[in-house]
Amino acid sequence: MDAPSGWKEVDSALEREFSFAHFREAIAFVASVADLAEAENHHPDIEIRFARVTLRWSTHSAGGVTERDRELAARSAELA
Amino acid sequence: MDAPSGWKEVDSALEREFSFAHFREAIAFVASVADLAEAENHHPDIEIRFARVTLRWSTHSAGGVTERDRELAARSAELA
Repeated sequence: MDAPSGWKEVDSALEREFSFAHFREAIAFVASVADLAEAENHHPDIEIRFARVTLRWSTHSAGGVTERDRELAARSAELA
Repeated sequence: MDAPSGWKEVDSALEREFSFAHFREAIAFVASVADLAEAENHHPDIEIRFARVTLRWSTHSAGGVTERDRELAARSAELA
């Protein structure tokens, strides 16, 4: 199955970079994603470089991207 | 000058990994570091992998690690 729109599959993970105007907005986005991750008990890797945030969704136990990763990738993008 | 205790210099940045028991604690640490970064207007790169957080302090305009990076690295470690 293809990656959700806006995402690419890199090293067996769904990856997308989100750019914001300010660091504080980037951090607020990370906090929202963290709440989603806790609620769903599934946690993306998150990288913050000033006002840019990269999310990487994968399922280590499955060795790659699952339907759940696709669903949570799409839901996390709605938080940006 | 040497890196502060607990930190190593990697690719012209001061780098350190912090491990927590839970994802939520890792996110709380990131929020504290973000507050420090905003207050000081100097922002580390931050990587979150479940309950592990890696901070990287450097000064791009100086092409490497400055005294300010050393100071903020030490202060950020106190937040863990």
